[in-house]
Amino acid sequence: MEQKVPEKVNLRDKLSHFQDYFSPKVIAELNGQQVKVAKLQGEFVWHHHDAEDELFLVLDGRLRMELRDRTVELGPGELLVPRGVEHRPVAEEEVALLLFEPASTLNTGNLRNERTVEVLERI
Amino acid sequence: MEQKVPEKVNLRDKLSHFQDYFSPKVIAELNGQQVKVAKLQGEFVWHHHDAEDELFLVLDGRLRMELRDRTVELGPGELLVPRGVEHRPVAEEEVALLLFEPASTLNTGNLRNERTVEVLERI
Repeated sequence: MEQKVPEKVNLRDKLSHFQDYFSPKVIAELNGQQVKVAKLQGEFVWHHHDAEDELFLVLDGRLRMELRDRTVELGPGELLVPRGVEHRPVAEEEVALLLFEPASTLNTGNLRNERTVEVLERI
Repeated sequence: MEQKVPEKVNLRDKLSHFQDYFSPKVIAELNGQQVKVAKLQGEFVWHHHDAEDELFLVLDGRLRMELRDRTVELGPGELLVPRGVEHRPVAEEEVALLLFEPASTLNTGNLRNERTVEVLERI
């Protein structure tokens, strides 16, 4: 990850290496931030992030991002930064995502529960 | 940009709003970082960034990222973080890019010249 020689990263290739849902994998790091890919299916937990923002960019499928006051539908090539608000990602069918957020970000934000992934795999 | 209500951003839509080359446009901000889109055609200047890293993700076309010791070819869905090394993006034909870097990053890195874009447009 903190490799000396910059190597390119192919998103399709990275996505082909795992199938578990709601378990982001770190594929690159820069400036204290991490780039992750994740697959989602089903609904996640409502959460928010107190001190940081996360970016969701849909690569495949359709993501329904539920906010408390409305729902935002995201398709491939669409991104959302749910800044400071509670959100719940819901994927009726499999969705592939690119995530961008601080290295310190917990996937469940303000919560720590059975959906929390404490140590992210790097692929 | 620092909007209260999170709105989705469609990359295709943003790319359709400009045609100038080597002039990144800011489309989102989070955690002191900016997400930008840019179109490239031709060759840029050799530069590096002293205190920060930038991420290049190709959306359309093929980008040739020249490093001093080798060249990395990037196609759609491929990203590179040329960490701490001198680099020169070259696009034989038009390339559309997503960039992720600190808000403070100058497009020409350690240089300030006629290719430098001092104030980035937000679209």
